[in-house]
Amino acid sequence: MSDPLDFYFDFSSPYGYLLAEKIDAVAARHGRTVNWHPILLGVIFQATGSRPPVDGSSAKAKYVFNDFARSARFMGLPYNPPSRFPLPTQNAARACYWLQGQDAALARRFALAVYRAFFVADRDISAPEVVLEIAAEQGVDRALKEAPLGGDQLAAALQSPEVKAQLKDACEQALAAGVFGSPHVIVDGEHFFGADRLPQIEQWLASGGF
Amino acid sequence: MSDPLDFYFDFSSPYGYLLAEKIDAVAARHGRTVNWHPILLGVIFQATGSRPPVDGSSAKAKYVFNDFARSARFMGLPYNPPSRFPLPTQNAARACYWLQGQDAALARRFALAVYRAFFVADRDISAPEVVLEIAAEQGVDRALKEAPLGGDQLAAALQSPEVKAQLKDACEQALAAGVFGSPHVIVDGEHFFGADRLPQIEQWLASGGF
Repeated sequence: MSDPLDFYFDFSSPYGYLLAEKIDAVAARHGRTVNWHPILLGVIFQATGSRPPVDGSSAKAKYVFNDFARSARFMGLPYNPPSRFPLPTQNAARACYWLQGQDAALARRFALAVYRAFFVADRDISAPEVVLEIAAEQGVDRALKEAPLGGDQLAAALQSPEVKAQLKDACEQALAAGVFGSPHVIVDGEHFFGADRLPQIEQWLASGGF
Repeated sequence: MSDPLDFYFDFSSPYGYLLAEKIDAVAARHGRTVNWHPILLGVIFQATGSRPPVDGSSAKAKYVFNDFARSARFMGLPYNPPSRFPLPTQNAARACYWLQGQDAALARRFALAVYRAFFVADRDISAPEVVLEIAAEQGVDRALKEAPLGGDQLAAALQSPEVKAQLKDACEQALAAGVFGSPHVIVDGEHFFGADRLPQIEQWLASGGF
């Protein structure tokens, strides 16, 4: 099996949500897996001098909000505009990294559940208690059988220096790899930015480059 | 027949070139025509506060240059990175508007020829003499039978206050319509930005919205 794809995303990124729903299946069709790397767009934008696409009430901002929903329909995915957007996502990202250290499959289910909680159910994923609720709904307490207080451990992890450092390192590694936004996928050194690059990713995987 | 699509583009926009090669055929498959509106991105960016995607030598700029060529390959189109990019495009745009007033089909052929001259043959489309050469290659002198000095008329048109005003008005009308970049397509009031939205445009035309 070839190297895994690297998938960088912020939990507050609508196009990140759209790609998160598709990327594993596309990779699997070509015998590949995906490493999921939650990052903080605030850190990325500050370092790169980029700006979010939705600042202000410009024609472009209006376009982008409409395009979020239209792109979701085009990709056959549910989408409800969150009532508060964008949101800080460090708690969700830290939880994801901590879970990756415990149970990779569980971490993946949690990440998708966070995205659906925000972009379908309009839940406030910035709040630690909501992040813990989502983790519990995905069976974190039950799943971490060796540590029956999985939920409590996760609550502690959100504030632990080790997990905070893990997220900080992930953002720095993303910047070093050339990541400048969300979603951003790297396949064998080739970079793809945006959910709309999924057809190109699939073609790249099918043909080994084009 | 339903209303024409409105296609806004700058002759220095690589994604504009890619969409220009496809948009008429996609529209025609659904019984629609396309009105082509050359605009000046400098005017649009100044008015909207947007920035070009390729300023500087950032990771994003590097990505975008690679994506131009890769997207061209993905769409089955030739592409050679111009040695000077971006270029001022007011001469090409003015020529296009003047030709639209003489012969719409000729103006269309001229517009595509300008794009290919820049993004395939690496010609300096900012220069009036190159614009006139491209027009001549498309048969402007021969085509304007009522005015055998078509080429000379076009040379004069590039500096005429009327044609300058026509381009200025086109940019203002584009801004008023909500255009913020290139390529930008409006279908029955629905906006699509970027060559990568072509599949969504086609779906929209096929289904009358989705």
